[in-house]
Amino acid sequence: MTISVEQLLPDELLETIRGRAAGYDDRNEFCHEDLKDLADAGYLKMFAPVDGGGLGFGLEQVAAAQTRLAAAAPATALAVNMHLVWTGVAHALSSRGDAGLDYVLDEAAAGDIFAFGISEPGNDSVLFDSRTAAEPTGDGGYRFSGTKIFTSLSPVWTKLGVFGKDTSGDEDSLVYGFVERSAGGYTIKNDWNTLGMRASQSCTTLLDGVEVPADRIFRKLPVGPNPDPLIFSIFATFETLLAAVYAGIGRRALDLAVDAAHRRTSAKHEGRSYAQDPDVRRKVASAAMAMDRLLAHISTTAAQVDALADHGQWWFPKLVSVKVHASETARDVVDAAIRVSGGGSYFRGSELERLYRDVLAGIFHPSNDDSAHATVANAWLGPVEE
Amino acid sequence: MTISVEQLLPDELLETIRGRAAGYDDRNEFCHEDLKDLADAGYLKMFAPVDGGGLGFGLEQVAAAQTRLAAAAPATALAVNMHLVWTGVAHALSSRGDAGLDYVLDEAAAGDIFAFGISEPGNDSVLFDSRTAAEPTGDGGYRFSGTKIFTSLSPVWTKLGVFGKDTSGDEDSLVYGFVERSAGGYTIKNDWNTLGMRASQSCTTLLDGVEVPADRIFRKLPVGPNPDPLIFSIFATFETLLAAVYAGIGRRALDLAVDAAHRRTSAKHEGRSYAQDPDVRRKVASAAMAMDRLLAHISTTAAQVDALADHGQWWFPKLVSVKVHASETARDVVDAAIRVSGGGSYFRGSELERLYRDVLAGIFHPSNDDSAHATVANAWLGPVEE
Amino acid sequence: MTISVEQLLPDELLETIRGRAAGYDDRNEFCHEDLKDLADAGYLKMFAPVDGGGLGFGLEQVAAAQTRLAAAAPATALAVNMHLVWTGVAHALSSRGDAGLDYVLDEAAAGDIFAFGISEPGNDSVLFDSRTAAEPTGDGGYRFSGTKIFTSLSPVWTKLGVFGKDTSGDEDSLVYGFVERSAGGYTIKNDWNTLGMRASQSCTTLLDGVEVPADRIFRKLPVGPNPDPLIFSIFATFETLLAAVYAGIGRRALDLAVDAAHRRTSAKHEGRSYAQDPDVRRKVASAAMAMDRLLAHISTTAAQVDALADHGQWWFPKLVSVKVHASETARDVVDAAIRVSGGGSYFRGSELERLYRDVLAGIFHPSNDDSAHATVANAWLGPVEE
Amino acid sequence: MTISVEQLLPDELLETIRGRAAGYDDRNEFCHEDLKDLADAGYLKMFAPVDGGGLGFGLEQVAAAQTRLAAAAPATALAVNMHLVWTGVAHALSSRGDAGLDYVLDEAAAGDIFAFGISEPGNDSVLFDSRTAAEPTGDGGYRFSGTKIFTSLSPVWTKLGVFGKDTSGDEDSLVYGFVERSAGGYTIKNDWNTLGMRASQSCTTLLDGVEVPADRIFRKLPVGPNPDPLIFSIFATFETLLAAVYAGIGRRALDLAVDAAHRRTSAKHEGRSYAQDPDVRRKVASAAMAMDRLLAHISTTAAQVDALADHGQWWFPKLVSVKVHASETARDVVDAAIRVSGGGSYFRGSELERLYRDVLAGIFHPSNDDSAHATVANAWLGPVEE
Repeated sequence: MTISVEQLLPDELLETIRGRAAGYDDRNEFCHEDLKDLADAGYLKMFAPVDGGGLGFGLEQVAAAQTRLAAAAPATALAVNMHLVWTGVAHALSSRGDAGLDYVLDEAAAGDIFAFGISEPGNDSVLFDSRTAAEPTGDGGYRFSGTKIFTSLSPVWTKLGVFGKDTSGDEDSLVYGFVERSAGGYTIKNDWNTLGMRASQSCTTLLDGVEVPADRIFRKLPVGPNPDPLIFSIFATFETLLAAVYAGIGRRALDLAVDAAHRRTSAKHEGRSYAQDPDVRRKVASAAMAMDRLLAHISTTAAQVDALADHGQWWFPKLVSVKVHASETARDVVDAAIRVSGGGSYFRGSELERLYRDVLAGIFHPSNDDSAHATVANAWLGPVEE
Repeated sequence: MTISVEQLLPDELLETIRGRAAGYDDRNEFCHEDLKDLADAGYLKMFAPVDGGGLGFGLEQVAAAQTRLAAAAPATALAVNMHLVWTGVAHALSSRGDAGLDYVLDEAAAGDIFAFGISEPGNDSVLFDSRTAAEPTGDGGYRFSGTKIFTSLSPVWTKLGVFGKDTSGDEDSLVYGFVERSAGGYTIKNDWNTLGMRASQSCTTLLDGVEVPADRIFRKLPVGPNPDPLIFSIFATFETLLAAVYAGIGRRALDLAVDAAHRRTSAKHEGRSYAQDPDVRRKVASAAMAMDRLLAHISTTAAQVDALADHGQWWFPKLVSVKVHASETARDVVDAAIRVSGGGSYFRGSELERLYRDVLAGIFHPSNDDSAHATVANAWLGPVEE
Repeated sequence: MTISVEQLLPDELLETIRGRAAGYDDRNEFCHEDLKDLADAGYLKMFAPVDGGGLGFGLEQVAAAQTRLAAAAPATALAVNMHLVWTGVAHALSSRGDAGLDYVLDEAAAGDIFAFGISEPGNDSVLFDSRTAAEPTGDGGYRFSGTKIFTSLSPVWTKLGVFGKDTSGDEDSLVYGFVERSAGGYTIKNDWNTLGMRASQSCTTLLDGVEVPADRIFRKLPVGPNPDPLIFSIFATFETLLAAVYAGIGRRALDLAVDAAHRRTSAKHEGRSYAQDPDVRRKVASAAMAMDRLLAHISTTAAQVDALADHGQWWFPKLVSVKVHASETARDVVDAAIRVSGGGSYFRGSELERLYRDVLAGIFHPSNDDSAHATVANAWLGPVEE
Repeated sequence: MTISVEQLLPDELLETIRGRAAGYDDRNEFCHEDLKDLADAGYLKMFAPVDGGGLGFGLEQVAAAQTRLAAAAPATALAVNMHLVWTGVAHALSSRGDAGLDYVLDEAAAGDIFAFGISEPGNDSVLFDSRTAAEPTGDGGYRFSGTKIFTSLSPVWTKLGVFGKDTSGDEDSLVYGFVERSAGGYTIKNDWNTLGMRASQSCTTLLDGVEVPADRIFRKLPVGPNPDPLIFSIFATFETLLAAVYAGIGRRALDLAVDAAHRRTSAKHEGRSYAQDPDVRRKVASAAMAMDRLLAHISTTAAQVDALADHGQWWFPKLVSVKVHASETARDVVDAAIRVSGGGSYFRGSELERLYRDVLAGIFHPSNDDSAHATVANAWLGPVEE
């Protein structure tokens, strides 16, 4: 590592970013200034190798950075997360001897911004099937048509990773490629108006025959679960970095709880600090213990990905577990912080009021709680016979 | 009972009220039209006796009505709740042979709107001490000076029930009275800008020597816990009706979960209804069981208040329990409904998005979870020696 | 009511019964003396009408009595519960205008002891199918062959209510009848050697063609769920009285927790009573709140059964909910009491050590947690299409 | 590492040990044969360096071994745990440059068995104060008098590590030393008759002036919390290895749940395997996710102890957290396994019946849940001002 996470994201930069979060949220506006500051700091090229102009981070460091960033501005961290996923996938493949997406790292180092155009409305098969059509152009390229939702970084991406289903052959296949922003053939709807995570501007993208040339088609896989390293790499990076983002919310909520405990006093107990109140102490302790477990879980998991640990069939259960652990724990800790902080946290403009809205998003990202349990049940009990 | 709860609040009226909720929330606006419709229906005189022009309801019926109303519009129910508390207190006292507040029932029947000016910033003794000054005017009246928060119905109340501390005598006493809207000597801040429950417009009220004449001073009690029937009546009515409001949110969320389960389908399972999904079924069942327990708890408790049950020292533990049961269960059921409904519920304009914001308010009303546990611990283990 | 629950079970009798519980448990012995004392007190004829020599209790009173008894000796209460179920069924039918089982009430008043021979190994359809053969004898009687488990009161019953499947006709039917102890044609295995609830001696009963004459065959129903009042009456009585037994365990554990809190002192806090310890206070308060909710739930449900409330399709969800509420809450309260009591409760001979073993049985009785949720899900979402 | 954990504890040995567990439990008998087999395998000298005749394990390996052993026989693992704590303390000190207890490692390699005579009745200060008197003999040795409880390995230890308070000087001090079994001056009561963990025979030891010579007095510390590396080493080893034992119970329960799911079938669902039942799948998945989190937590924490990570004041919160995480999770997983396994697990002789009894012990060891939260609260909020 050429630089530490704390050097990459010094306190001063984080304070600047935190200071903008309420405004972006209120105006339902993309975090342009944050992204510029992060890009200037080298944040978007963390996964690129040092000799390729990057920071040479592995997943453990990037996860730590995302936790630190999310503690300042969750929606900004969530937005940039999707860029980090594609570059993390390229890094994970490269570490495993597959240089096929090295260009992603090069381009990220050169300034490109990658977005994640995978999620589709009503597609609960997620990576294992698609409702988007991938029509071969005849020269190895494809035209994609369909609806992609939750496309974070909508206003600014330069490359959008998509997938769709090619039904033209004997067997259906799922085709992956990168769309150029300049390509045309798609529309970004201005429809991101959500409870929280507003600065991520994760709008809907309508693909209307957008063309991806052959050299940017990077995978064709059969429909259904698949052992291809691409799938592992997406899962590993996506789940771990999402976990890191929500851990950051939890981490911040814990600090806000501690601050509130020290700031508030009890009239009933002659001005005693809330930090002395047994119920407050218990809640802060429980939250701190929960965060300690979570942060250990994320860093251990990320380090094992970096170390090419061979967990075989147990990898997917492990990865969905860490994501669900994070999204649920973050909610619990925000809840505890709100209880410690009292009615003041119910007012607009309080940071906890925003965190309460932001943190809910965690349960909707794949793998959600139900699908995570299904993945784990499959590993331990075998598949459901339908 | 002259009329049933369903006749008082027919489905059509509830749909009208539900239809306005999103708009009030979005515009941060008091629910004027709702209040007019409710007043026209006789809702504000539920507790007044039939021969006094009211509906002759007891606490059990009023609680059922509030649950039904809150399922349509939580903030409207919460706003009107405070009027119902004062009239409910008058009713409870009357039932117990104390006619001292019968004029509250008469005036409510005649159109007055009562608000609850008790809560004060930082006063965690709630009813047992006050930071508001009550200065005797010499003729039996008092001038009140201090800050009252969470004054629901701010834009419309005609009488505000307040209390303050008179420190002029040998022993401090807590003085209760009703302020007339026309009295002057107070300011209503336009500061209600919260996460949810926005239509209640529970603004801050600054009392600046507002005068209450002797005939509207209705209690003087020593500082500290007190067996006066007024205290019991406030507790019983306040806690039970708050429970009813939050039960209404839970009840509505359960219906929304059922609707979502029937509406959504799974592509992974060939279009199978989510109502067939085992995880969805489990969540709906858990939520339904929780609501069944809660509604039984509220109606039983309210019926016991109406029946003048003599629980002695166990009344306070029972009353705080039912409120906490409601505010916590409602949150759990809203959470389950959101999980069943999926990402669509994260968008502004979805009813669950609003319920997620509204329901949080429940944890802040007294008795909050910690003080409720303290009350129960006192009853079972004796007081804390400090 | 001719007599109150407290008069029926005075403290002195309960202390006697409590005093025997450890011995029965240790020797894995049926509670003969307890049963005799209860019979002498009239406990076994609670449901019989006053003019039939009984106490004229309804379900609400019997449930309260069972809670009181179980707080002294859970296994004794569980044993006698099964007798109470059959007499309660007869009472519930009688209240609904069906005098067909009035003889059960008469015989109970005359000294008969009824046992419940319904459960079968591996039959998760419980009342809706049977693995026991019911072979018609030609004169309206039946011969039953099969295995019945959890037959409480094995050493002492005089009449055993059983059911089996008659497959001799065009449509299979489930046939209910009462076996006489003197009938022969069955074997009681001496196989009750369990973690807890040992004094109930709920042994396995092998039916080997035991004959029930025509006048003691009391129902023939088609296989599958059924609206017959017998099914409702069994469900209502069985679930409510089981709930009452486990509520009694919880109630006792709460008292033991309070006692321990007052008895124990903290050296670290200069001999301060554990009743002053914030964590202990919180645990006792939570347990007390849980018990308050549970006891209200049981008494309300039982009173509604007595009042012939018409909940239609919602009755079954309500009844399974109250049982699960009780069996789960009792476990939580025992757990809290053990934590409050500390390591001493881990030693054999401590009452909590036994309650920890007894209380686990609650999760195994029908309806267990999973089937209860399935029942509730069916009511709210419709059946699973398989 | 000279040998892997799996080589040290091969499946065959574990099956032998598991096969004895029910008998020891039933007869309330110390696990003599297990201990001999473990000693023969080198298990008692895991922490001793390779060049000192040991296995050269660090805490991470020993914890993994204890989890593996406890999955076969919890009480055996718990018994030997106390020997492992003293040798682990010696190892931890040695790794930190303090060779003062190297003789413990030498003696363990030579066959000595160490026991842990620290816990005292009613001493909730645990390591920070003592009710045992330590009286100086004048030549640097001490005579100890007091009561030690939970002395695992009572029948077999050769050296007992104790501490007591010397009040003879200007300031009280806590004195640590090793008692020889041959010393005389103490009595081992035959009083271990508990719900579970019976084979550990953790009897009470009455110290009646037992003398420890000067060369076996290894620490004198002031009363109260203390930064001495001995305290850290005891905490780190004790909490981590206890966590490992309870993790082993959870791990075994998970396997038993999976076995039961595959073994049981549902008559209601035409013989469908319980492994196909959605509720069973959910429970197994939740349990598996919980175990995954726990095992990651333990191994990460142990590895950090081995790596001499400098967590400063955060070490104690981290260590108590991992122990509480384990003891609570193990209970949850045993509970899930019992639910999956059904009524059969309620019978004596079922392994889960024993695990249900064994696992409860976890909540009583220090740090219990309350004291753990207090430790964490102190770290985050500062101490309680009394």
